[in-house]
Amino acid sequence: MPQSEVKREEAATLEKDFRAISTRLRREGRKVLRDFPITPAQFDVLQTLFFHGEKRMSDISRWLGITKSTTTGLVKRLIDAEFVERRRSQKDRRSFIIDLTESGHSLIERVISRRVDYLQSVMTEISPEQVVFFEKTIALLLEVMDRKEEKQ
Amino acid sequence: MPQSEVKREEAATLEKDFRAISTRLRREGRKVLRDFPITPAQFDVLQTLFFHGEKRMSDISRWLGITKSTTTGLVKRLIDAEFVERRRSQKDRRSFIIDLTESGHSLIERVISRRVDYLQSVMTEISPEQVVFFEKTIALLLEVMDRKEEKQ
Repeated sequence: MPQSEVKREEAATLEKDFRAISTRLRREGRKVLRDFPITPAQFDVLQTLFFHGEKRMSDISRWLGITKSTTTGLVKRLIDAEFVERRRSQKDRRSFIIDLTESGHSLIERVISRRVDYLQSVMTEISPEQVVFFEKTIALLLEVMDRKEEKQ
Repeated sequence: MPQSEVKREEAATLEKDFRAISTRLRREGRKVLRDFPITPAQFDVLQTLFFHGEKRMSDISRWLGITKSTTTGLVKRLIDAEFVERRRSQKDRRSFIIDLTESGHSLIERVISRRVDYLQSVMTEISPEQVVFFEKTIALLLEVMDRKEEKQ
């Protein structure tokens, strides 16, 4: 495993730049939401269900760190807009879960797709060598992060 | 300006990896919050004030896309915990604004600092050449993104 000396100042610049890129990507993706009657907080609920699957109301509250009454309000509006549905859990027939409808699912897919388009258009403006190298480095960093997580 | 052909599939992988890294960084930073009686939603309010300055209650609602009553609840708890304060605006003496206290400010700084530590520890595990190249590429991508924004 190669080792580098990375100064704290260097890491601080990188963290800042990385955060700025994330913000721009998020902002770009959320442009899709302009055409829908949906708030960022409602979007967070959809995103949670998209990436982590169906959840009980109380789990959504815990996951997003919001009160039960806030969650109830968010989910109610998402049900009205037909982006999520409330139904009996397949695993435990006694409990009810919230899950994405097909239109909720496709909304998140459109957001991701917009982020991909944007990243594609940005990447075309750097050299082919840089593109390849960047892809490799990003994948490598992710591996390092996963390895660190396993060690914990 | 060098031009590359970036396939959509390539951009999709990159978006996914990039998102995974962002999630890990965010998760790491928020570990700081474990020691504080603060929810992710409250943290979003602090972060907004940290990066964008003092705001009126109604602007916080709009910025985060949450209802006024949710904002009122979040801010009330943040005032009780002394992370934010409510005071008259310096610019417009008639209106009241919400701003970070010193302890609110230092909480966000601790979160960022934890993210930097983490990134530093991850970066030490790739080669020095990769570190330099990666820093340059990230900065370059940010430039491209800013240029695109100006053009709009």
